[in-house]
Amino acid sequence: VALRGIHHVGMAVADLDEAIATYERLLWARVEQRAELPVDGVDAAFVLVGGSRVELLSPTTDDSPVARFLSKRGPGMHHVAYETDDVRAELDELAAEGAELIDLAPRAGLLGLEVAFVHPDAVHGVLTEVVSGG
Amino acid sequence: VALRGIHHVGMAVADLDEAIATYERLLWARVEQRAELPVDGVDAAFVLVGGSRVELLSPTTDDSPVARFLSKRGPGMHHVAYETDDVRAELDELAAEGAELIDLAPRAGLLGLEVAFVHPDAVHGVLTEVVSGG
Repeated sequence: VALRGIHHVGMAVADLDEAIATYERLLWARVEQRAELPVDGVDAAFVLVGGSRVELLSPTTDDSPVARFLSKRGPGMHHVAYETDDVRAELDELAAEGAELIDLAPRAGLLGLEVAFVHPDAVHGVLTEVVSGG
Repeated sequence: VALRGIHHVGMAVADLDEAIATYERLLWARVEQRAELPVDGVDAAFVLVGGSRVELLSPTTDDSPVARFLSKRGPGMHHVAYETDDVRAELDELAAEGAELIDLAPRAGLLGLEVAFVHPDAVHGVLTEVVSGG
């Protein structure tokens, strides 16, 4: 399945309100959607910088993956998401190539998206997401 | 100056050939340009994933910023670059907003781009680049 391109870049931040304000002030960003994702332990916002999308993520629990990321590395770039027409087919192809998957099946993300994560070890240290729909 | 969107996402990798092969195999990437940038101590490639651009960066000297990044954090996401019509005007605006700049003036990047980096402390830990031209 061909990828369409980058759907968004995810940034881990300590304080979501402050981060949104920074992106608005420095990068002319506009908030597209903001929502809490309890299953991931994050408060998240998609912001648009020009025609591109950045996801700002702050933890809502101390043991969420984003909380652990912040404890270990501090705020910064967290993941990149590529858009596909079919997350399940994409996962099958990645698995066939031997890529280690975090999500073996698509699950629900923001904006009505189907999403799945590929392990960073498969992509030279980059936590990589594939998304479709929305 | 409004930003057009993400120009590319930069990934620090230990071995550029291996990383290009991984992006070709898993993400159907195509190499757009490959070049050594001696002033930055990196061997770099722009690869296209669908309609989006990823920059893969590997160090050519032990004391380059990318070498230090890899020693400290391992391979992974390194920076995000936003496209603007005017890097110098963008830098002036960022400075006026109090953002700490790494490059006080535009310099030459790959593809004939003008580029400048903003300090990660200004953008919640994200090394942020602005680029124009090319």
